[in-house]
Amino acid sequence: MNIEDIGYFIQITGTGAFAVTAVLAVAPKGIDLFGACVMGIITAIGGGTVRDLILDVPVFWANELSYIWIALGASVATFWGQSVFAHTRLYKAMLYFDALGAALFATQATWKVWRLEFGLPIAPILLGIITAIGGGLIRDVLAGRSNLLMTRELYAIPVLCGTLLFVAILVFLPQHGHIGGLACFVLIFVLRAAAIHWSLTVPVWLTTKQRIKKARESSS
Amino acid sequence: MNIEDIGYFIQITGTGAFAVTAVLAVAPKGIDLFGACVMGIITAIGGGTVRDLILDVPVFWANELSYIWIALGASVATFWGQSVFAHTRLYKAMLYFDALGAALFATQATWKVWRLEFGLPIAPILLGIITAIGGGLIRDVLAGRSNLLMTRELYAIPVLCGTLLFVAILVFLPQHGHIGGLACFVLIFVLRAAAIHWSLTVPVWLTTKQRIKKARESSS
Amino acid sequence: MNIEDIGYFIQITGTGAFAVTAVLAVAPKGIDLFGACVMGIITAIGGGTVRDLILDVPVFWANELSYIWIALGASVATFWGQSVFAHTRLYKAMLYFDALGAALFATQATWKVWRLEFGLPIAPILLGIITAIGGGLIRDVLAGRSNLLMTRELYAIPVLCGTLLFVAILVFLPQHGHIGGLACFVLIFVLRAAAIHWSLTVPVWLTTKQRIKKARESSS
Repeated sequence: MNIEDIGYFIQITGTGAFAVTAVLAVAPKGIDLFGACVMGIITAIGGGTVRDLILDVPVFWANELSYIWIALGASVATFWGQSVFAHTRLYKAMLYFDALGAALFATQATWKVWRLEFGLPIAPILLGIITAIGGGLIRDVLAGRSNLLMTRELYAIPVLCGTLLFVAILVFLPQHGHIGGLACFVLIFVLRAAAIHWSLTVPVWLTTKQRIKKARESSS
Repeated sequence: MNIEDIGYFIQITGTGAFAVTAVLAVAPKGIDLFGACVMGIITAIGGGTVRDLILDVPVFWANELSYIWIALGASVATFWGQSVFAHTRLYKAMLYFDALGAALFATQATWKVWRLEFGLPIAPILLGIITAIGGGLIRDVLAGRSNLLMTRELYAIPVLCGTLLFVAILVFLPQHGHIGGLACFVLIFVLRAAAIHWSLTVPVWLTTKQRIKKARESSS
Repeated sequence: MNIEDIGYFIQITGTGAFAVTAVLAVAPKGIDLFGACVMGIITAIGGGTVRDLILDVPVFWANELSYIWIALGASVATFWGQSVFAHTRLYKAMLYFDALGAALFATQATWKVWRLEFGLPIAPILLGIITAIGGGLIRDVLAGRSNLLMTRELYAIPVLCGTLLFVAILVFLPQHGHIGGLACFVLIFVLRAAAIHWSLTVPVWLTTKQRIKKARESSS
């Protein structure tokens, strides 16, 4: 099993995991099978689609429909087998696969934008983040859920750290681009996995919550 | 009156009906004339615009501004004549015209994507659905309303059935493409009309609602 | 200081002001530093990005990253210095800079679309409005806030008046295009500034609120 096979395996499982976590996230709101499939597919391919629209390149799934089929299959399976997937241990496993997917998709996106020399050096970071979290944002907006920008969930910041590191290596050590990609992937996954394992959230001093609380206390 | 005239007539009335139902849907939330026009136009052309962005072809209304003018006129008329349009019988008629529009736009979209050989065979179905319901989804998100993916409204599933049938005919009986288009249009309209006439909704066993209820009962 | 320097100055301060008002708008909802930066950047460049996608031209910030840097810097500064920026007098100043930005961006957009001869004469108006308010709409949707289409805030109507005037001049007095652009910019800014200064809102008779109230009174 070489590096490409591993990449392909992560791509497949990551896409599926995006759809599974999406359906589990919206199911409590009461959704039908059709809606579940739409949410699963949007979450799996939405971020990359927005990236490709901004880059003005053909959307990645047009010639690689396996992304859609996997997202569709995973959505249907999750809809019917919800109680199985919501089972704590399997759900945790799905979160890790989801993290693997986010790490891989962000790394691939950063590299794609870099190669296209599009808005260097900041666009590869921006579009790497959009690719990893964009689908989930669209899903949450459609489902009327609070999205990860408005909660203290530690999901986007690991992606930011990884893509920032990748771009820094591409700028300062361009001969080590491949190591940069690997470092980006590993850093995102490790940070996100740590957040899942220890239920870490964004520290309060990095949010406006504390100040809101303080302001209320001082005014009362 | 030949087939093209009929198509043009449906296109015009469908666009107008999309705008009318849009303004009636958001009016109870309290909206001004400007907002009503924006909502009407977005609902009428939003789905097709997203489709064309994904296909990377010029947006359909750029060279055919009559879509915008009709949506604008219908929005203004509905805003001022709200009590007339909300009158039960006229409102019902509008729902049927809206269904005609959805059926026609989905059929046209499926055919457009098929001819462009874009992501066959699944993209014509996906983009057919997006064309028919995308504008309404954007409207509901902007209006802070619950959209049809999260309700049991039977709107998207008829579109799915029709486009699925169309693509099946294009794949297995390619010489009967025209009949496929007609069958798609008729099937969508008939299913949607039945849903309007008998107030049909998505059956509960196809939603997560029942399971949520069961889970609550067993835990209490 | 010539006219181009003034234009550049407004562009910079307008972009910054878009980000500042964005972060102040979402801060009460409780947001972290990362989310604040995302909201600031989206508000500053979102409208123009949607415009460029519809026009099918390269997004304006790809070769002019200063928009992103300014939005990023302004977001970080606002996040940390929130209490300073929320200080009444400075906040008012920011609203005026925001109005300057909206006026300039709408004028530029209308001119850009007109030159591309895209969907004349209505698309320059539509895309001028989208450029000025689109970023704020995306921000409000992501933040779960009620957006300006659903409130009586007087923001989009000044933009409509200005772009309408600009297009009218381009159509009927094409030799005075430059005066049209200036008139558009001034009209938008003056109307918006008046709305800020006197806290003007959309008159009730131009909304559906009054009729809803009447309907309730007559039914009770």
